[in-house]
Amino acid sequence: MKSSAYLEALIKKLSKLPGIGPKSASRIAFHMLGMHRDDVEGLARAMVELKRNTFTCSLCGGISDGEICAICLDPGRDTGLLCVVEDAKDVLTIDGTGEYRGLFHVLHGLISPLDGIGPDELNIRALVEKCRGGTLREVILALNPSVEGDATSLYIARLINPVGADLEFADTATIIKSLEGRVKM
Amino acid sequence: MKSSAYLEALIKKLSKLPGIGPKSASRIAFHMLGMHRDDVEGLARAMVELKRNTFTCSLCGGISDGEICAICLDPGRDTGLLCVVEDAKDVLTIDGTGEYRGLFHVLHGLISPLDGIGPDELNIRALVEKCRGGTLREVILALNPSVEGDATSLYIARLINPVGADLEFADTATIIKSLEGRVKM
Repeated sequence: MKSSAYLEALIKKLSKLPGIGPKSASRIAFHMLGMHRDDVEGLARAMVELKRNTFTCSLCGGISDGEICAICLDPGRDTGLLCVVEDAKDVLTIDGTGEYRGLFHVLHGLISPLDGIGPDELNIRALVEKCRGGTLREVILALNPSVEGDATSLYIARLINPVGADLEFADTATIIKSLEGRVKM
Repeated sequence: MKSSAYLEALIKKLSKLPGIGPKSASRIAFHMLGMHRDDVEGLARAMVELKRNTFTCSLCGGISDGEICAICLDPGRDTGLLCVVEDAKDVLTIDGTGEYRGLFHVLHGLISPLDGIGPDELNIRALVEKCRGGTLREVILALNPSVEGDATSLYIARLINPVGADLEFADTATIIKSLEGRVKM
């Protein structure tokens, strides 16, 4: 029997989040006890609103507050430049650097035959259509340098190279350097 | 301009929690995007309920769901044993070991003249009254072995020793060992 069932319940739920063990969960729960009630309610509301009001952007496949995300809608973006990434989190990472001003395309995974994930399970058809559209000057394949990442990059490269776009390989960890000094494949 | 204002708002709020930097906050936010909506709403509700429904126990000073906490109300506790701790979090730590079956007393801080915290700022008067009540067989001072912790332990020891209780010193890190092999001062 703990001193507070509410405290125990929250610590249990917080412990299930990635990177948060029982000790961190306990520390966060006690921190919340000391926080202003409005701030705790604001954090709770932000979590619920994220689930209720975000969708998958119908253009890039990233996280969006509407049918099309703020990046795809931004008139200041270079529409001739497309950065292909594994998941929506990579958009945040690369865009957060402030060095990249083009558009994104999210694959929602990598080709992995052992896991039964082939090209048809990924957002690749829409990518090919974008390449055929004729507005792209350059396509950057910013996939991680794993076996699956390399296989996916090669697959996409062969698929879209004939249609005339420039292709590059980069991993998200070194994306700034990659963007600064990229080479043609 | 980020792809989602909701995502950005949540990451910013999560980053303010202790031990969570921007990277962890981003990882948790994306994890929430993949969680079932009921689970996210359950976590949000647990946070709000903690703030709305918990109080300070009028007996021990710990976290409670009512006027008196579940530990103080538990008839299975040894009421002759009192463990004095710095804050409510220590109650959770020590009680979580399952090795201690007595009651607690939370000081809500330590004596620290440099910070302007004297004995009157702490929950010490109620402790002296408990010692005078005559039901206590033993008082365990489970304060951290810092300058402030030792000063507070000594202050309390001198204050309540004349009234007949046994006194011990222990720090929360080694509380289980302390409880197993404690010595009289």
